[in-house]
Order: sequence, then C-alpha cells, then structure tokens
Amino acid sequence: MILSALLTSVGINLGLCFLFFTLYSILRKQPNNVKVYAPRLVAEGKIQERGHFNLERLVPSTGWVTTAWQTSEDEMLSKLGLDAVVLMRIFIFSMKVFSFATAVGICILVPVNYLGSQLDIDFSGLPQKSIDSFSISNVNDGSKRLWIHFCAAYIFTGVICFFLYSEYNYVSCKRIEYFYSSKPQPHHFTVLVRGIPAPSIGSYSDAVESFFTEYHPTTYLSHSLVRRSNKLQRLMNDAENMYKKVLKIKAKSDCRERYKRSGFLGLWGPRVNLVDHYGKKLEDLECAARIEQTSVTEKAAAFVCFKSRYGAAIALHIQQGVNPTEWTTEKAPEPEDIHWPFFSASFMKRWICQLTVIVTCALITLLFLVPVVLVQGLTHLEQLEKWFPFLKSVLQITVISQVITGYLPSLILQTFLSFVPPVMILLSAFQGYISRSQIEKSACAKMLWFTVWNIFFANVLSGSVLTMANIFLEPKKIPSILAALVPAQASFFIAYVVTSGWTSISSELFRSTPLICNYLKTIFRCKEDDGDFEVPSIPYYSEVPKLTFFGLLGVVYFFLAPLILPFLLIYYFMGYIIFRNQLLNVYKPKYETGGKFWPIVHNATIFSLVLMQVIAIGIFGLKMLPLASGLTIPLPILTLLFNEYCRKRFLPIFHSYPAECLIKKDRHDLNEAMTREFLERLKTVYRDPTSLPVRYTDNLERPHSPLLTTDVRTT
Amino acid sequence: MILSALLTSVGINLGLCFLFFTLYSILRKQPNNVKVYAPRLVAEGKIQERGHFNLERLVPSTGWVTTAWQTSEDEMLSKLGLDAVVLMRIFIFSMKVFSFATAVGICILVPVNYLGSQLDIDFSGLPQKSIDSFSISNVNDGSKRLWIHFCAAYIFTGVICFFLYSEYNYVSCKRIEYFYSSKPQPHHFTVLVRGIPAPSIGSYSDAVESFFTEYHPTTYLSHSLVRRSNKLQRLMNDAENMYKKVLKIKAKSDCRERYKRSGFLGLWGPRVNLVDHYGKKLEDLECAARIEQTSVTEKAAAFVCFKSRYGAAIALHIQQGVNPTEWTTEKAPEPEDIHWPFFSASFMKRWICQLTVIVTCALITLLFLVPVVLVQGLTHLEQLEKWFPFLKSVLQITVISQVITGYLPSLILQTFLSFVPPVMILLSAFQGYISRSQIEKSACAKMLWFTVWNIFFANVLSGSVLTMANIFLEPKKIPSILAALVPAQASFFIAYVVTSGWTSISSELFRSTPLICNYLKTIFRCKEDDGDFEVPSIPYYSEVPKLTFFGLLGVVYFFLAPLILPFLLIYYFMGYIIFRNQLLNVYKPKYETGGKFWPIVHNATIFSLVLMQVIAIGIFGLKMLPLASGLTIPLPILTLLFNEYCRKRFLPIFHSYPAECLIKKDRHDLNEAMTREFLERLKTVYRDPTSLPVRYTDNLERPHSPLLTTDVRTT
Repeated sequence: MILSALLTSVGINLGLCFLFFTLYSILRKQPNNVKVYAPRLVAEGKIQERGHFNLERLVPSTGWVTTAWQTSEDEMLSKLGLDAVVLMRIFIFSMKVFSFATAVGICILVPVNYLGSQLDIDFSGLPQKSIDSFSISNVNDGSKRLWIHFCAAYIFTGVICFFLYSEYNYVSCKRIEYFYSSKPQPHHFTVLVRGIPAPSIGSYSDAVESFFTEYHPTTYLSHSLVRRSNKLQRLMNDAENMYKKVLKIKAKSDCRERYKRSGFLGLWGPRVNLVDHYGKKLEDLECAARIEQTSVTEKAAAFVCFKSRYGAAIALHIQQGVNPTEWTTEKAPEPEDIHWPFFSASFMKRWICQLTVIVTCALITLLFLVPVVLVQGLTHLEQLEKWFPFLKSVLQITVISQVITGYLPSLILQTFLSFVPPVMILLSAFQGYISRSQIEKSACAKMLWFTVWNIFFANVLSGSVLTMANIFLEPKKIPSILAALVPAQASFFIAYVVTSGWTSISSELFRSTPLICNYLKTIFRCKEDDGDFEVPSIPYYSEVPKLTFFGLLGVVYFFLAPLILPFLLIYYFMGYIIFRNQLLNVYKPKYETGGKFWPIVHNATIFSLVLMQVIAIGIFGLKMLPLASGLTIPLPILTLLFNEYCRKRFLPIFHSYPAECLIKKDRHDLNEAMTREFLERLKTVYRDPTSLPVRYTDNLERPHSPLLTTDVRTT
Repeated sequence: MILSALLTSVGINLGLCFLFFTLYSILRKQPNNVKVYAPRLVAEGKIQERGHFNLERLVPSTGWVTTAWQTSEDEMLSKLGLDAVVLMRIFIFSMKVFSFATAVGICILVPVNYLGSQLDIDFSGLPQKSIDSFSISNVNDGSKRLWIHFCAAYIFTGVICFFLYSEYNYVSCKRIEYFYSSKPQPHHFTVLVRGIPAPSIGSYSDAVESFFTEYHPTTYLSHSLVRRSNKLQRLMNDAENMYKKVLKIKAKSDCRERYKRSGFLGLWGPRVNLVDHYGKKLEDLECAARIEQTSVTEKAAAFVCFKSRYGAAIALHIQQGVNPTEWTTEKAPEPEDIHWPFFSASFMKRWICQLTVIVTCALITLLFLVPVVLVQGLTHLEQLEKWFPFLKSVLQITVISQVITGYLPSLILQTFLSFVPPVMILLSAFQGYISRSQIEKSACAKMLWFTVWNIFFANVLSGSVLTMANIFLEPKKIPSILAALVPAQASFFIAYVVTSGWTSISSELFRSTPLICNYLKTIFRCKEDDGDFEVPSIPYYSEVPKLTFFGLLGVVYFFLAPLILPFLLIYYFMGYIIFRNQLLNVYKPKYETGGKFWPIVHNATIFSLVLMQVIAIGIFGLKMLPLASGLTIPLPILTLLFNEYCRKRFLPIFHSYPAECLIKKDRHDLNEAMTREFLERLKTVYRDPTSLPVRYTDNLERPHSPLLTTDVRTT
C-alpha cells in the first residue's frame, strides 16, 4: 500500500464518519426515532415521544457532542453504575497511552524509519512511497538507529505499566467507594449454597434450615430453595403458553371464533367452546405442576440470606461441610441477574459442562477459519461456473466478476464473524454460570481470545491452521517467525483500523439495525404495541474485546509501524464521545459487576505488551543486532513480574470485599431505619419462579392481568 | 545385563541386607548403642541405658520385626501423630499397587514378552538371556500381543486411580478425626498478621490491638508483636556468645586462667580479671539490645490469638484490609515449629526471595549434572597422569586404575548427591517460610523433582543437558523419544532398585553415621555430656521423595519391563517393617502437619501415571500399532481429569479445616474446664525470643542455670 492510497482511504472513511454524524444529529431529533436513539430516556420518562414539527429538526447540530463531553464521571457513576464508568476508563486509558505513543512514534520513530534505506524502493515523490518505508522494515540491518527503537520499547513498556497501575488503582478505589455509597443490595447479604446432601429425614429445606441455624446462629436470616427439575420447567412453560392462548381467544371480539370442532385440525367432531376447552387443559397442567412442585426430590440448591454482609462473607469464604463438594457456597448474583437453568445441576454435571464448553470454545477459536476458507473457496469463478452453469454468461461481465471475487469472500467472513458473539454467549450460558453477568464476562474473555487468534494471528501467519498450531509447538522459533511476519502486515492493520474500526464505532452511534426495525414497525404495525419496548443493555461482551483488540494492535505496532498510532487515537477519541452519548441516551445496565471487566482489560494489555516484546526480541535478532535482542529479554520477564504484583495488589479487591469494608458498611446500616424493612424484603427476593404457586386459572378471572410471575411476586 | 548377572546381584544384595539385619539385631541390644537405636525411648524414659551383660545380647533375634509388625495404626497415631501414619500409608499404598502390578506383570506380561522374537538374541539357556528379553522391546513389531500391554495399561491406571482415591479419602478422614481428637493447639487459635500499615500515632502494637478489637470484637484475645531487625538479632547473638564465654571461664578450676593481659592477643597490657572484663562487655551488649528493642520502628508482624478456632479461621480466610497487601493473614505455625528470620520481611522482599529461590532451585535441578560430569571427566587416567605426573607409576597398576575409573565417578556422583538435601533445605529456608514444617514440605517437593530429573531423566536421556532441555521444547516428539530411550534403561533401573534401593533402606535401619559418632564419643569424651542428646526427627524431606521416586520407576516400567516389580515389592515390604521399627524407637516428630505430605505423594503418582501413558503412546507408535497408540491418548486426559476431581474433592481439607469441624470442636471445648486455662496460656505462647527481656547478667549470678530463652519463658 502506498501513502496516497492510505490517505485516500482515510479521506473516504472520515467522510463516511462525518456523514454518519450528520445523519445521526438529524435523525435523533425525529420524534419517530426517539425509541431508537434515546430509549433509556423514554423508559425513564424524561423525554416525550411526540413533538411538534419545526425546522430545527432538519438542521444538523453538535449539541449531543457537548452534552456527552460535559457529563462528569460522578454523574455517570450515579446514573449508570461502575461498569459504565469502567468502560469509559478503557477509552481514557487508551487515549493516554496512545497520545504518548503517537508523540514518540510520529516525532521520533517515523523519521528514523524513513531515513533508512533497507527497502530501497525508488519512487519519485512522498505520496508514492510505500507505507513500509515508515516502518521498522526500512531501517538498515545492523544500524545503530535500532537502539532508538530499543529505548522506545523500554520507555513505552514503562509508560504503559505506569498507566496500568494507576488505572487499576483508580478503578479499585472506585469499586470500594461505590460499595460504600450503595444502598443495601440483596446479593451482598446472600450466598448460594449447592451440594446440599440428601437429608436422611425431613426435606431439603429443613436440612438447610438446620445446618445454618446450627453453624451460623447469629447471622442466618432465611433461605429459599431452588429445585428446577426439567419436567417441572416444561410443565410451567406449557402452562404459560396455554394461558397466553386462552387470553388471546378471550380477547377476540368475534364470538364465533371462540368455537371450534374438537377433532383433528378442527375439521370434525362436536363443536366446543375453546375457552372452556383450553381452560380445562390449563387446569390439568397446573395440577401436574403443583404435584411436581411438592414431589421434587432431586438435588437442590438454596439461596441463604444473612442478617449482615459480613455474615454472608463468612459463609462464603470458609469451607462449610467436611466434604468440600457438599455445602459449597458461592456468591449470589443480583436477583434480576439470575440465570436459572444451572441451579440444581450437580457438582459433576456442572464440571463436565464447563470442560465441554472450554474444549468446544478452544476448537471453535482454533478452527474457525477452516470452514470460512472452504466456503470462500467456492466463490472462485471456475467453481461457480462449474456448479451453476447457467451463471456463465453473467459471470463473464467484468464488473460482476470483480464484485464476486473481491467482495464476496470478505462478506462471507463478516457474516461468519457476526455469528460469533451470540455463539460465545450461548456457549458461556451452557458453562454452568448462574448469572447473566458471569455469562457475559466469560463470553467477553472468549471473544477476546477469539479476536486475537482469528484476526491478528490468522492474518499474520496466514498459513493453514496446522502450520499456525505448529508454531506454538516450537517455542524457540516464535520470536523470529513473528518478527518476520508481523511487520509485513502493518499496512493491512492500518487499513483495518481506518475502515473496520472507524466504521464500527460510527455505526454504533447510528444504530442501523434498530433504526430499520423501528421504521418497519411504524410502517406495518401502526401503533399496536406501544408499551412493550425494551431498553437495550450495554453489550460489554462484544465491545470490550473490540476495544482491547485495537489496543493490542497499537501496542504491537507501536515501534514496528508507528503510522498506525494517530488513526488509533482518532478511533478512541471518537469512541469516547460516542459511547458517552450512547450510555447517557441508549443503554441501561441490567446488572452491576462493580468494575469486574477491568481485570480482563488489564490482562489483555499485559498480553499485548509481552507479544510486542517477544516480537522486539525477534526483530532485533533479524536486524543483526543480537545485543539489543539479548537486552530485550528481561523486558517480558519484568512485565510479567509487574503483572504478578498487580494481581496480588489489586485482584483480591475485585473478587470480594474485604472485612473492613463489610463491617463498616454493616455498622453504618445498623443505624438506618430502613434496614429492618430491607431484611424483611430480602426474605422473598430470591424466589425460584417455578417454586411459586401456580395461579393461571385464578388470573383468568381477571382479564388483562399481567403474567403470573410478576403478579404473584407483588402479592 | 543378562539374567544370571541380575540374580547374582540380587543374591549379593539380599545377603547384605540379611547381614545388616543380623548386625542390627545384635547391636541394638548393646547398652552403649541404646541412644543410637532407641533415642526416642530413652528420651521418654521408657528404657534404661545401662544393663547387665548376658549372652542373649550376642544372639541375633527377630523380636523387633514382630513388635514393628504388631503395632496397630491407632497406636502409631496416638504416639507419633498423623504424619508418621501418612508415611506408613505411602508404604501400604505402594505395596497394594505393586502387589497387583507384580501379579499382572509376572504372570501375564513377562511370558508374553519372552515369547516375542524381536531382539533375536541367540543364547543357549535361560540364565544367559538378556533382561531385555523379558521387556516389551522383545515383542515383535505390529504383533497383536501388544494389545495385552494396551489392556494392562488401562487396567493398571484404573487400579492405581482406585487406590489413590481410597487412600486420599482415608487420609483426609484421618485428618479430620485427628483434629477432633486433638487437645487445644495454640496454632489453631492464632493467625499471623503481616503488612501492618505504619500507624500515624501510637505504636504498631496499638495499631494491631485497635484493628482487631474494632473488627473482631467478640473473638479477639491477644497479640504479640514480632519485630526482628537484623541489628537486634546480631546483638542478641553476640550477647549469648559472650554469656557462654563468661560461663566457661567461670567454670575453669584454675584461678590463674581467669586472668589475661588486655592488649593484642593477650600479649601485653595490664592483667585483667576476665570475668569482669567480659562481664562488662556483656552488660554493654545487653544495654544496646534493650535500646534496640524499644526503638525498633521497622515493619512488624504479629501473632494474633483468638478465643475460638472459628474466630481465627474467619480472620484467616477473609481479606482484612482494603489494600490486599496490608493486614494479610496466614496460618500460624505451631510454637515449636517457628522459623523466625522471615517474620518482619516486607511483602516485596519475601516475594523476591521466593522468586530467586525458585529460579535457583530450577537452575540447580537442571544443571546439577554439568559440574558432576566435568569433575568426573578429571578422573580419566590420562587427565590424572597429566595433572599429577608422580602418580604415573601407581596408576599403571591394573587394580588401582580399575578402581579409579570404575569407582571414582560413582563416588563423586554420590558425594554430590549427598549435598543435595541440605542444599534444598537451605534454599527452602530462604524462601520466606515461617515454619520448619513448611520448609521441609517445600524441600520435599524440590527433592522430588530433583530426583526425577537427575536420576530418571538424566539416565534415560543421557545426553548433554542442552539436548535434554531441547526435548521439552518440542512437545510433539516427547512420546517417541521417551519410548525409544526409556525401555533401553530397564536393566539399569532394575539394578538401581536392587542395589541403591535395598541398601539405602537397610542402612536406614543400621544408622551407620550415628553409630560411628556414638562410638567415637564413647572412646574420646567418656561420659562428659551425658544429658544433651537430641532425638532425631523424621527426615520427611529426604524419605518421601525417595519412596515416591521408586514408585515412579515401578509405574513407568510396569508394562515396559515388569521384571522390576518383584524387587520393588521387596523394597517396600522391607521399608514398611524398618520404618515402623524406626518410628517406634528412633524418631520423634518435631511438628505435625496433619498429613499434608499426602497430596505431594498423590501428585507425584499422577505424574508417574501420565509419564507411563505418554511412553505407552510413543511405544505403540514405534511398535507399528498406531491404533493402540491413538486409543491410549484418552488415558492421560482421563487421568488428569481424575486428578482434577481429587483436587476438588480432597485438597481443600488439607488446606484448612471446614467450618463444621471448627465450630463443633469449639463448642465441645466450651464445656471443658481447662479451656480457660489454655486461653490464658495462649497469650504468652507466641513470644519472639528477641523481644523478651535480656537478662544474661542476672543469670550470671546463678551459675549453671540453663540459657536465657527457656529460663525466661518459664518465669
């Protein structure tokens, strides 16, 4: 790629971004789109959906940028919780790091690289120079100038570590502060107990009650059993569907429609009243469910609530039963965050699930490219002509054949890639987690390694999967292989940042899919279901890996091809503004992990650093500067030691709150009037929906009543 | 090695063992040796050192075998603690495993191997057959008989896993039982607190007091600060030495000896009374020590005692301070087991110490053979003749040259090897541990890997160190390389078991070094120091790795060369009897880890199993049976999964006692009268010797009083 081509691409993409921004600033003012661009505000009742038409609507404006920019962090914390603030800290951290990197890279490294003559490409003007002339590849072998790169690697590592430390420190302080300032949260008072041994006499509930009153007499408050057998679950689902069906029939205005023949497909047999008919079936289902509810004898789990946070922490941290696989305790998720299916699964089953998922995920990550490459192979013209002979004449038109060969492979890759996040979420959901936040956190880590492997390594190594795997079986050769291959892909990744990075971040602002859905809705369904729209939650599991992956690109290419850095800086700056805007207007957090996404980002950055250093070791070797290569070896070791120190210094804070905080907070609560009320409410918060009384038939008497679960909860 | 040679070696070594046994049964009856062969009983006052001479003394007997055999496990548990029982369980476990292995190996595998004709060695009779004819090398390539070995590998893995599981279960049950039956132990009520933040006002002691009264008001009992600065430590040592010196001078009968000139080497200057002179110096030292004791401002650690075991466990398991590197808690060792030097070392210093030791230990383990081989190179005759020309005539005598070339290399290796356990203990002592038991446990693990690497792998690979390391950088080739090399060393390891194994176990009985020391003492020193002899403690750190290493040999060679198995069985059987005898008569435990050595043995056995399976994968490949090779691949995976399950099921019990046990035991103690008395005593048990009042000068007034520390403790 030559410089002028890069600049053209930058120009086109900048133009696209501005177009997106302009369109957004107009579209967001249209009353029809308010649910697309400000669902959070609609849900909170802060914005009216309808408005009068005025001309101002059609004029692009930058007011939203100012609002997004001016909102303070404290405001964001109080409105959106710590996770959103941590997401913004990722941007701030990246901007800090890459501001420094850009300064060093553009002012020092790029001129040094440009003055080299290794590549010896004899073009006339600057615009015709290859991008590689600005990369380390252009520095002459054995040149003393490489020591500048060597120093840059050391200094950059130091700067990143400094920022990593201060950011980790900042986030962990915020986490503690947030804990102190939060209202009593049910999940702080509750632990989930599993592996309840089968009681010799009495029920599981009695067993839990007696165990905890015996060993935690002063702090035990209550418990609620979760025993979700598959059969019960199925019955409850059937009953719910039947209930909806009856409601629908009842709602029909035409009385004749309420009657139908009882035989096959309603074609023969006596005519019956459908409401009665299905009502009868519903009653049967309910009856079966009630019997099942009382007779469940499978292994159960239980939420055990305590009178204080510290009491719950004690039960959480100390092995309870003599057998470590019995009476195991783990943190309870927030009540709205619970993912029910894995509750009563046994120790063994969850363990096997977890192993299976890890193996599957590793296989998907490693072998993802195989089917993609195979399908892409089919887009070769000869193949297509052979398979679909009637296309022959069409394919001979130059434009069409160019589009097919040039565009289709990339489209196929993108299509496959777009399936990955949902697949990862699905896999994580089967891994035995009991809360959506855990599932998303796990999917986030999976996505991260998937991206690193399939976008970075697949492009860099660009051989078959087997050679890729082979490289990692010969650790000695890794540095030199990477050093030879990574710089060669610099122009690809610069283009990747400019095209894929910038476009993805501006389409985040534009929200094209919800926008189109919204238009289709308004056209086809008029105003039918006005009430039920859902405020989207922040998709951490797809955003955090994306941000971190661009960080990896920046860190790895910092001293190889510093030209990438300014484009990354623009990416993070745009992202900062756009995500602040989206967080304030669009997303509403569904759960609060208290900043637990930060350690993932920290670890990924450390990985990037070590990767960069390993490549540095290799490249100094290739460039005939063995001394620099040898002197770089301590760098990854120091980085890993730094990481180890951070793990000891900060990570425990993210696992659980220390005794000091818990006790202080508990004592503070003792003086509050509402604590007693909260504890009273706590007893009923963790209720398994399937263990609630089944009352569909009763509900039928009151038409238009909301569905069972919420209904029963409020009673 | 041919069969007859093996049998000769077995005969000689069996003869040696019987000679040792006979000598032992005579020597142990001599009154002079009672401190060598029954120091425990002497210390407990159960045996008289002097006895009348009678003829029976000179007749060998087997009474000791019967006694050792008949002692029940409960008796051993009550007399010697759980660690000794676990040591015996290692023997029992090994005997069970290798009884089964011997049966399968000798009855099935040996005949199958012998019927092969791969090696095609055409000797006439059975005694002339090479040992290799009985190993898997003799089975023809591609032979269907290899499926018998395949089945044997699966069945053997199953049997070992079954025994491992039941033994882990047994030991962990014993551990809980032992805890229930034990008297109140100070270390169950105490935690060690480190990283006490520098208090803004008041002393460190006040800071600890206020922190724990604030956050553990109901359970906190007392604390004692440990602040061992190097300067204070040096002053205390100097003072103690000076005190001993003065005592010695005072004890001298000749009054003239108490005077000396005060100048250089006592050659000139005025004559002074030495008692006064050194007494003065002692006073100065004491004064300096006292000043230092009060002025210590360095970071301190503290033993914090609680009123209940559960209280201590809560403080232990929950992170106390907001900063995870401050107020860190860890288990307190038994008071007699404390290793003082690392107490007030900072988090950072201990961490660096640990890293340094791990790196050093890895280097020693990896590179141990380099100096040994170099020194052995010097024993070549030409080298010796060149270096010491005057030896030329002597070295030309055949016998001498044979001894030097044949015996010296092995002697040098053995000499180097004998330094290893103390070096490992020394390394572990620098690793930042705070108790001798932790040091020994860590040294045990270090010794184990050292032995496996330097005896097993060094012999098998027998190349230079670099090629050895290279193999592990190419994981794909490991199975086939091992499969080619390991069976070739079968005869060496059979000879190793018979010679080194049997001899070491019978010399354990014979206790040659203490025996010689005892004789020298009786000859030279008459009855001077009758009182101060020390009962030796069980050297777990050298014995457990030895036993486990022989287990590794047995497991690895089970299907490669089953001839090794009967000799191993004899080894373990002899060891069982001998160690029971030694435990009952000789050793006295200095500490009690509660069976924590078992997980090391378990892990090492799993390692042996996986090694065996990896070799199996390789050997089936080499023997042209790729299907069997492929079908063996699930075996190591299953074994590792089994290990993972055991880790979850049993390991937590060895880390700490569960809440159920702690609370039950605490409640049981509440009813005991002596608990209050125990808690009163607990307050003073954990006292840093350097923080005790310095009273050497006072002690001087009372001659022959024992040394300070014990003296002050009893006051």
